[in-house]
Amino acid sequence: MKKQIRLLGIDDGPFTFGQQTSIVIGVVMRGGAYLECILCNTITIDGTDATEICLDMIQHSRYKKQLKAILLDGATLGGFNVIDINTIYEKTQIPIITLTRDKPNFTKIEDVLKKHFVDWKDRLTLIKKGTLHKILTKHNPVYIKINGLSISEAEDIIKLSTIRGVIPEPLRIAHLIASGITQGESYGKA
Amino acid sequence: MKKQIRLLGIDDGPFTFGQQTSIVIGVVMRGGAYLECILCNTITIDGTDATEICLDMIQHSRYKKQLKAILLDGATLGGFNVIDINTIYEKTQIPIITLTRDKPNFTKIEDVLKKHFVDWKDRLTLIKKGTLHKILTKHNPVYIKINGLSISEAEDIIKLSTIRGVIPEPLRIAHLIASGITQGESYGKA
Repeated sequence: MKKQIRLLGIDDGPFTFGQQTSIVIGVVMRGGAYLECILCNTITIDGTDATEICLDMIQHSRYKKQLKAILLDGATLGGFNVIDINTIYEKTQIPIITLTRDKPNFTKIEDVLKKHFVDWKDRLTLIKKGTLHKILTKHNPVYIKINGLSISEAEDIIKLSTIRGVIPEPLRIAHLIASGITQGESYGKA
Repeated sequence: MKKQIRLLGIDDGPFTFGQQTSIVIGVVMRGGAYLECILCNTITIDGTDATEICLDMIQHSRYKKQLKAILLDGATLGGFNVIDINTIYEKTQIPIITLTRDKPNFTKIEDVLKKHFVDWKDRLTLIKKGTLHKILTKHNPVYIKINGLSISEAEDIIKLSTIRGVIPEPLRIAHLIASGITQGESYGKA
């Protein structure tokens, strides 16, 4: 796989109780080395617009046709605003990888969802959708779900776009920007 | 000079007529390769708080003590909100480089300032302060002013932190972020 492939990483900003919306940042990079474009949008906290917002960011970007994969920090943005990665893949035909450092604890997630959401079953079904793969790295393992590419292709993409730690650069930088914009100074993820 | 020195690049977002403030982004990088931190603040358009805002960003950053140089996109932020780089150097003891691709046209600047500002003389004096150096690059030349370091040190810093084109990465990325946050999608500088 070419080292210079274009990747889009999407992550949201931190938020506090009572906040209605959160910032969502998209970072287009060539591999893990060269930053080409920043996208910005807002998302409803605990809303149901995550899929739509991601689609909007991708569809309206001038890099859309060159993107080889989309990287997401887990299956949700803005709290429990769940992303349907199958829909995104179907509508864009761009392969998707969701990646987390911690193995999702579905029992805990179910408890929280039941407490706060009338539509908890729909959200849980969407969060649980797809197979979780454990990927070994030089450091700790990461957990991914994929759509539109093979596990080994996803592994290659994660490897070529990670500089330090276990988080690919487009995701790490999207996190730093979203956190810096929201709080004045960013706090990392590595 | 070490390739991994910490640099801070500061740039502002675009704005339209009638807007009161603009976003200012700080990007802390190791050389031109590894992004470590994002800082964010706002500035009054055509105000007089540019020096204070830059100082505030630097003084409050946890990377302050490790910064080897500050890079600014010219002598102003938020329209004609002029930065006093001597004050910033005196108060922080961190070397500063202002860098532009176009040679400043002081006659034009004077005309604009006279039209719009009662304190045009003060602003013009500040903009003209310091010696302008023409630096040759592989592509077009750039124009810099420096404080706290030699021309050859400044040249080294520009060289080690530039990947493509003539703009050092901390400045190029600060511009992309400020522009992306303001407009939804960034438009570049290379």
